Amino acid sequence: MAKKIGVLLSGCGVFDGAEIHEAVLTLLFLDRAGASVLCMAPNVDQLHVINHLTQQEADERRNVLVESARIARGEIQDVASVSAADVDALIIPGGFGAAKNLSDFAVKGPDAQVQSQVQRLLQDMADRSKPIGAICIAPATLTLALSKRSPRVTIGNDAGTAAAIESMGGLHTVCSVSDILVDEKNRIVTTPAYMLGPGIKDVAAGIEKLVAKILSLC
Amino acid sequence: MAKKIGVLLSGCGVFDGAEIHEAVLTLLFLDRAGASVLCMAPNVDQLHVINHLTQQEADERRNVLVESARIARGEIQDVASVSAADVDALIIPGGFGAAKNLSDFAVKGPDAQVQSQVQRLLQDMADRSKPIGAICIAPATLTLALSKRSPRVTIGNDAGTAAAIESMGGLHTVCSVSDILVDEKNRIVTTPAYMLGPGIKDVAAGIEKLVAKILSLC
Repeated sequence: MAKKIGVLLSGCGVFDGAEIHEAVLTLLFLDRAGASVLCMAPNVDQLHVINHLTQQEADERRNVLVESARIARGEIQDVASVSAADVDALIIPGGFGAAKNLSDFAVKGPDAQVQSQVQRLLQDMADRSKPIGAICIAPATLTLALSKRSPRVTIGNDAGTAAAIESMGGLHTVCSVSDILVDEKNRIVTTPAYMLGPGIKDVAAGIEKLVAKILSLC
Repeated sequence: MAKKIGVLLSGCGVFDGAEIHEAVLTLLFLDRAGASVLCMAPNVDQLHVINHLTQQEADERRNVLVESARIARGEIQDVASVSAADVDALIIPGGFGAAKNLSDFAVKGPDAQVQSQVQRLLQDMADRSKPIGAICIAPATLTLALSKRSPRVTIGNDAGTAAAIESMGGLHTVCSVSDILVDEKNRIVTTPAYMLGPGIKDVAAGIEKLVAKILSLC
């Protein structure tokens, strides 16, 4: 039986949603490894909508699940309908959406809260010792959700974000874009991706390793 | 000097814009090959907006350039500002946007018109014998733009679309998703991608070959 891996999206676009390259690369490497995929996202409004040409906030409302469906080509579920029993592992691509829509870390830092259905699923995954991968800024939201377990994560080398992660109970380690950090105890794998860049091939190198490690932990 | 390849986007999402996987895979393989990339899109409203969760039309307006900027992470130009002199080759990812926003082929079939700035650039590329790649349904718009040159293209094996391409002056050949069709005379390379699917790894195989061939033709 193919392993079934959940991919938790947070919209569609680096500045207000899931980082598109990171999400698509995750899907590519999962498919190449023979895994089946269950895409999901919370059925809530985005924190805001950013015009990606001007980087200005737009006077619009968009729904996280509806926009995430663009990346998933319509094959996606409301995260509220997903149980940890449904998947063998979960991967969370980055983009500001992971810290604006899955939690409000981008706005509130260590005082943030995780979206309720995302919190439920992450807690449930951890309780069942199922592997979780988090990319780019997503490890901040993951640390917040699982702070009592003192997760070891990386977001690259940004000192401010690293300090925020430590203040939420995480343990931060510097890591290069082409590499991964593995928390064997908590079965968590993270990679910096576009927290470091510089380009899609570099980001792909780290994500390919993350996907392989997650599948090996299943 | 790195080769500079234009990537002509048509929005952000398979049902009303550029197919996201095809666009990202194009960027990935270009970056891996050491090419530099110039993303571009027409600065016009989308034909319509499709809710990708329900596949119903939404009562919204979105701009093709602004939405394409999501895939390009903000690094994108209005196609009106791009000359064929600026790039060594051009690649057009698919998605319905390539036949709704770059032309209106999806609505009018062989009676369609190509968006004026897209027509200008494609004509200019062909006049300079610069290579053009087209993915998925994009070969229909390309055929329409360059009908006087009788381009040889593939959109996979869909009989209706193949017949429409032939009625516009093109020559259609059936091709598998993991392969490419090369028109050596016109320096055009096409691959079926999600016209055939079934999955992202299959689509990636054809796009990787298309990118390599386009670079070899530069």
